Amino acid sequence: MEPLQNDRLLRALLREPVDVTPVWMMRQAGRYLPEYRATRERAGSFMDLCRSPELACEVTLQPLERFPLDAAILFSDILTVPDAMGLGLYFSEGEGPRFERPLRSRGEIERLPVPDPEQELGYVMDAVRTIRRELRGRVPLIGFSGSPWTLSTYMVEGGSSKEYAHIKGMLFDRPELLHRLLDTLARSVTAYLNAQIAAGAQAVMVFDTWGGILTPRDYREFSLRYMEQIVAGLEREAEGRRVPVILFTKGGGDWLEAMADTGCDALGVDWTLDLGDARRRVGDRVALQGNMDPAVLYSSPERIRREVVTILESYGRGGGHVFNLGHGIHQHVDPEHAAAFVEAVHELSAPMHRE
Amino acid sequence: MEPLQNDRLLRALLREPVDVTPVWMMRQAGRYLPEYRATRERAGSFMDLCRSPELACEVTLQPLERFPLDAAILFSDILTVPDAMGLGLYFSEGEGPRFERPLRSRGEIERLPVPDPEQELGYVMDAVRTIRRELRGRVPLIGFSGSPWTLSTYMVEGGSSKEYAHIKGMLFDRPELLHRLLDTLARSVTAYLNAQIAAGAQAVMVFDTWGGILTPRDYREFSLRYMEQIVAGLEREAEGRRVPVILFTKGGGDWLEAMADTGCDALGVDWTLDLGDARRRVGDRVALQGNMDPAVLYSSPERIRREVVTILESYGRGGGHVFNLGHGIHQHVDPEHAAAFVEAVHELSAPMHRE
Repeated sequence: MEPLQNDRLLRALLREPVDVTPVWMMRQAGRYLPEYRATRERAGSFMDLCRSPELACEVTLQPLERFPLDAAILFSDILTVPDAMGLGLYFSEGEGPRFERPLRSRGEIERLPVPDPEQELGYVMDAVRTIRRELRGRVPLIGFSGSPWTLSTYMVEGGSSKEYAHIKGMLFDRPELLHRLLDTLARSVTAYLNAQIAAGAQAVMVFDTWGGILTPRDYREFSLRYMEQIVAGLEREAEGRRVPVILFTKGGGDWLEAMADTGCDALGVDWTLDLGDARRRVGDRVALQGNMDPAVLYSSPERIRREVVTILESYGRGGGHVFNLGHGIHQHVDPEHAAAFVEAVHELSAPMHRE
Repeated sequence: MEPLQNDRLLRALLREPVDVTPVWMMRQAGRYLPEYRATRERAGSFMDLCRSPELACEVTLQPLERFPLDAAILFSDILTVPDAMGLGLYFSEGEGPRFERPLRSRGEIERLPVPDPEQELGYVMDAVRTIRRELRGRVPLIGFSGSPWTLSTYMVEGGSSKEYAHIKGMLFDRPELLHRLLDTLARSVTAYLNAQIAAGAQAVMVFDTWGGILTPRDYREFSLRYMEQIVAGLEREAEGRRVPVILFTKGGGDWLEAMADTGCDALGVDWTLDLGDARRRVGDRVALQGNMDPAVLYSSPERIRREVVTILESYGRGGGHVFNLGHGIHQHVDPEHAAAFVEAVHELSAPMHRE
């Protein structure tokens, strides 16, 4: 492997000093880029794109050709793990992800296998290896997975949901069955992320997209606890460096303190929190990643710069901040505005890192 | 008017002692009730139902025939005000509410009228009067409106939205134009709620369904400020009693302290907060209304009772709590489960109100 030329991301995630605040964007390889749409068109379906290591590598690198981003993130989907468990993932137009065989019965849950990442998910590991090779040490590569709770919502509902009737019915009336499912998922995700690290991921992030629909009690019991299990089971060093772990619960701003206690290195923060308040709450236990409202990218470059200043000043001086959006970049954003955002973070943060 | 026989709701909203914790359910007149579906069928469209004072009264009273609820809430829609401003509200299958003429230009916003509630919204006032007459003093009637910010999202987007590109574009790039719109809406909502109070509403609630998509700074500037303007402009006494005002920002748990400072009497709280924590944060400034996850109603009556106990104990002894769901009741809930919920609140809270 070629040596890492830009390690700002890894340093900031470990709260070490940096020259400028590192920045990347959730869903930076995505539909707002015309070159992504062209590759997607060539690939066929969305899953065909995920399953081709060459094409997944191509779209992972596309935003780095345009913008001086400080990280690449593996192009994949959070639902590859349940798909590898045999649920049959597909994407239907306008409906989002669906499973051919949603889980409902005790028997189905008890028979659920822990997939071997190098077998059933070998295409993801091939993508990680291909991307690392093609990155040639420019920036670190972030691997990722969905959280057990978030994966379980899709697996039990059969797809996206508004009311979560099935999964919450299970949570309230058959909690021991849900715990069984979540434990299987936690073991599967741990193996999946460790395989990504072995294949070359230099940081990993767990996306808990639906933790925010739970009560504080249920969040701890059904989501946070399994993320903690994953954090405890991860290989935290590779290629002689620490591999930082980032947890992100969308809408989980009330629970930052508990999340910081899991042993992770950093927390993703959405835009409904003031970043300075979040920093005061977690102290020096973890770094923070966020937290610009992605809708700001619809506005003018001047307005984007002002929002970047507001967030940088809210966080304050010193390391431990990775700039990001509070959610994935929207598909109708002008790429020039994303360029203005990335440039603004580097330029405007530099004075805050000088002695 | 016949004297009020059950004033638990009004007493609890003003933090006065009660014999048992009062309870009602957001969207209690709704699709989970077969008798509602029958009336809705007879009415024709959803808006036809809202526009008929007799049918609106009929569905308002339906849940009270089934359950010993402590309040009735006017059956209507939050979008009646923009409809009365000339935007042309309609409901399309599967898409939710839409406006024929969404607002985009400065001219459209500057020409927007403040509707006369007894003229363009006379059907709502007739419904309030009809319901009060038919209630015959059994329980108080709650009137309501959408918040200016929430109404503006529908008016500018033209309906429901996932990314809020237009309204946030206006917020970031033309804030003075959005302020103009929000001020017109705040004046319209104030007149609308005052007319409801004059017609017989005994408490009023402002639903800020989309305040939770804003940053803390933008929430204060574009949502809370206009709710404060409304609270300041309301007639707070009618028929010799105080008319309590409830504010509810879904996903606004981080901002309870600021909401309590508006001068309102009570705050609605969704289920992502622990109610005891919320009480400690607002102290004796306001009452709290909430906060059971509506999905609990999918589970067994025994499980529902346990959740009711958890929430009652979290709030603790004494007045100032109105039990409710943290969001509208889901349409697939069994009405027997709603009955178990209401009964559990009354039965299990009684010991907590004894000396």
